[in-house]
Formats: sequence, structure tokens, C-alpha cells
Amino acid sequence: MLLEKLIEEAIQRPDKVVAVAASEDHEVIHAIVMALERDLASFQLFGDKEKTLSLLKEFNLETSDKLKVMPCYTPEESAVKAVQAVNSGQADVLMKGMIPTARILKAVLNKEYGLRTGKVLSHVAAFDITGYDRLVFITDAAMNIAPDLQQKAEIIQNAVNIATSIGVEEPKVAPITAVETVNPAMEATLDAAALTQMNRRGQIKNCYVDGPLALDNAVSLEAAEHKGISGEVAGKADILLVPNIETGNALYKSLIYFARAKVGAVIAGAKAPIVLTSRADSAESKLYSIALAVRAV
Amino acid sequence: MLLEKLIEEAIQRPDKVVAVAASEDHEVIHAIVMALERDLASFQLFGDKEKTLSLLKEFNLETSDKLKVMPCYTPEESAVKAVQAVNSGQADVLMKGMIPTARILKAVLNKEYGLRTGKVLSHVAAFDITGYDRLVFITDAAMNIAPDLQQKAEIIQNAVNIATSIGVEEPKVAPITAVETVNPAMEATLDAAALTQMNRRGQIKNCYVDGPLALDNAVSLEAAEHKGISGEVAGKADILLVPNIETGNALYKSLIYFARAKVGAVIAGAKAPIVLTSRADSAESKLYSIALAVRAV
Repeated sequence: MLLEKLIEEAIQRPDKVVAVAASEDHEVIHAIVMALERDLASFQLFGDKEKTLSLLKEFNLETSDKLKVMPCYTPEESAVKAVQAVNSGQADVLMKGMIPTARILKAVLNKEYGLRTGKVLSHVAAFDITGYDRLVFITDAAMNIAPDLQQKAEIIQNAVNIATSIGVEEPKVAPITAVETVNPAMEATLDAAALTQMNRRGQIKNCYVDGPLALDNAVSLEAAEHKGISGEVAGKADILLVPNIETGNALYKSLIYFARAKVGAVIAGAKAPIVLTSRADSAESKLYSIALAVRAV
Repeated sequence: MLLEKLIEEAIQRPDKVVAVAASEDHEVIHAIVMALERDLASFQLFGDKEKTLSLLKEFNLETSDKLKVMPCYTPEESAVKAVQAVNSGQADVLMKGMIPTARILKAVLNKEYGLRTGKVLSHVAAFDITGYDRLVFITDAAMNIAPDLQQKAEIIQNAVNIATSIGVEEPKVAPITAVETVNPAMEATLDAAALTQMNRRGQIKNCYVDGPLALDNAVSLEAAEHKGISGEVAGKADILLVPNIETGNALYKSLIYFARAKVGAVIAGAKAPIVLTSRADSAESKLYSIALAVRAV
């Protein structure tokens, strides 16, 4: 419901343009066709013209004034041109097609025409969970393996920027650990305490950070009260910062496979949101990712 | 349903005795009263006699031939006596009451009268998840912070022993990582590969280990097939070994709070299972933990 609302909000706003790198990808074209059916955005498809047109035909989409095919000879060329389209302001969002992540990121990080901001790039996933009246953001479940303190601060800021841009004012951020007390034997709890103070000192902005918090204390007011934890964040977290990729990945997939939650995700930290869906994502999840990116610009 | 079945099985078997250390604990007495109502086990309550009797009275349990109160003057004394009861064979399971974990473990690890086996102690949680036709074991979500390879091997063996003893023959073990490929930048994937080979060489017994596996590939046959992963474990895992306590704790709590799963848990690796419920556990979960321990001996 909350991710459907995100689609509705995106549709209401002025039309945005998504530049797709290496558009000759069955799953990606499927998501784009769904997005066009909902009138969610316009698309510039950089890639193999023949294959792209043939895939569009497969989905019975011959032509649309919201769709431009921009022929390219190689996936690399399509990545460069799609990135340049975003850099020049012709497009608002970048989306990955049939090209490895490392190769599209090479174009994104190019100093001349890329989308660098000097900040870390990070994965931000917005979950729609049964029984929760707000989106729960999880970061970083897919990109940064074992971020250090400074990287965690930037990962939080990236997620805060995405959450704020879709209307979550001053999001509440919980650095997630295994316990809610600072324990020198658990580095994640030390980082959580430091991130809390960095927020108080203005080093992480436009949000409330309070940790360490275990997952239950972060999302359940009852669990937080049971442990005697109060404050702006406990039991009400909007953003869950995970300490490492294993925690994020297991939590992400637990939500999908065990809790049957819905998700949309983007890469944040570049000049524009990047949609990097993977083959394992459902078609619905790809649509939500496009909606999140389009709504966030 | 699966944890209820565990209770039924425990009831069918010859009566077991649970020795409780520092029984003067409201929540623990509540769980014991529930267990007695189901005729799940007998209990020896080592602790403050007056407080224990008063708590039993509160739950309208004045007397039962399945209940013995063994007066002790301090929580330490009760821990020593409860451990000795298990060590001498008078009791089959140890249960923690109103005493810090570190202090009951001190008695457990005592060389003279304790329950040491020379193996690592580890936390094993059995989850009953909607839509799954088997219990899913998660280890170690609560005790070992960042286990090394040898500790992971012992943690697996402990979980295998528990699973086997409740009737899961040759359990399938998935070392959980963020990706399903070996990546030198992710230590958890290297350990997962090593654990797989340790299993093939007979260093981890009575089970199938196959990793690295991400959570989806471990529990969903469809996800595993989508990635082209076959073998004994992928999509069919009984036991999920988490690489660190943060992953385990987040996964554990995600199952409870987001997926509304049921859980029972024990500490394994000592001569007898240890029930270490925490204040945050539901009464139902404490009952399942007693059932798991009683069924496993």
C-alpha cells in the first residue's frame, strides 16, 4: 500500500526521465513497460536498437511518446551515454540494463562526465511491511561490505536524503546492533554511539540518529519500553543502518521471503538516483524501485 | 504448529527433569507453571525458597509431585547446585532464573562439577515460520559475537546435534553470506567454503553443509534454481549458520517482529541443553524453549 502510494505520488508530479544503460534486457524492458502503463516516467533507452525494439514488441509496445530508443554499439557506450544524459540534465534517473554493475559504476564515477559527488555510493531499500504504517528503509544491504565509521555516516546521509525527498521529514535513524548497550567487544555498538554523537554535532544532518539499538528496540515501541529505552528513535525508526552487508542482506531477504514484504530500492550518493535491479527481483519490485527513484528527484 | 508438535512429542517421552537456577523469577515461574499444565517435564527449583513459593502461589500452584523446591541462600549457590544436579544425572536440562548469564555460565564451565565438553557453547533457535513445513534453525544469534572458522564448525555441530536429537536426520546446513559466490573481500564466504569442505572431510558430521549461500538461495528452491544453484542444501536448509551476531540477531528479530514466527531456543555444547530465556521473550517462546530442551535430551 505504501509503495503503491509512492507510485501515485510520482504520477502526480511533473514527468521525469529515466536513462537506461544497455536496454536490451528482458526483465528491464518488462519493468519499463509496466512503468509506462502506469504513466510513471519517460524513458530513454540507450542500447542495442534491434534487440531493444524486439523486446518492446514482445511486450506489445511498438511506440510511445514517453519512450526514445537511442542506438548504441556496446554496453559501455550505452552506459557512458546514459550517464551523460543524466549529467547534462536531459534525464533525471539512471537505470541499469544488460551490463554488469561494475561497468555502469565506472561510467557513474567518471570524473569528466560522471555523476560523482565525492560521497560514498550506497544501497537504500524502502520496505512496505504488513502491520507498519510507514516505509522502513534498510541501508546498506547490497553495496558496502563492511563500512567504517565515516562510510556509515555517509550511508546514513544518503538514506536520509532519499527518505526526506519522498516526504519523510527528519527521519529517525537506528544504527542496528545485536544489543542496545555499548559493548567494546562489539565494534558495531561503538560505531552506533559515535554516529549518534556525530548527529548531535551536526555531522549527520536532517535526521535523528540514536543507537546502538537492536532490531526489536528500533521498530517496536513495546520492545523499547520493555528495555526502558526512550528517545526520538527507539520503537519508531524510519531508517535501519545495518553494520555489515551480511546483516543487511539477511534482513532484506528475511523481509521478502519470510515476512512477504514489498520493496523498492535505489543506489544513492550520486548526483541522481540509480536503479540497479537484479534478475532475482520480482517485476513488482523493479516497478517500485523505478517509482522510488522517480519520486526522489 | 511445528513447535506445538515438539511439545506433544516431549510429553509422549519418558519424563525429564529440569533444574532451575535462581528460581525466584516471575517470568521463569510463569513458564514453568505453563510447562507443568502441559505435563511437559518435572522441575527442581533451586533458589530463594520463600520468594519461589510466593511466586508459585501467585500462579495458583501450591504443590505438584512434578515440582521440588530446593532452598538456596544465594543465586550463586543455586547455580552450583542446579549444575551439579545435571552433572550427577538427577536432572536432564539446566534452566536459568534470576541470575545473570555470565554467573550461571561460570558454574556450567566449572572444571570439577560443571557441564563442560571442551566445545564452544552456542545458541540454537528453532523457528516455526508460516509457509515452511519444517523448523528452521538459526545459529548463533545470541552468544558468539564473531566466531572464527573453528568456532563456526563447532557451532554447526552443536546445532546439528540438537536438530538430530529432535528427529531431523542429517540436517542440511547453509552458512549464510551476502552472496552465493566465494569472494575474497567477504570473509564469511571463505569460511562458508571451508566449512563445506570440512563437512566433506568428516570434520563436521551427521549433516550436509553447503555454502556460501545467501538467505534466499538457502530457503527458497525457486531462488536457488533461479541462480542455478543445486545440491543437497540450496533451497532446503534446516540450519542457517550466521556469520556474526549482528546478522543472527537481526534475522532472529525480523522473524519475530516482521514475520510473526514462533521460536524456541537453547544453549548447546554443554553436557545438557541449557534454557536461557530472556525477559524480552514471550511466555509462549519460553515454553517452546523448555520443550526444545526436554525433547533434545
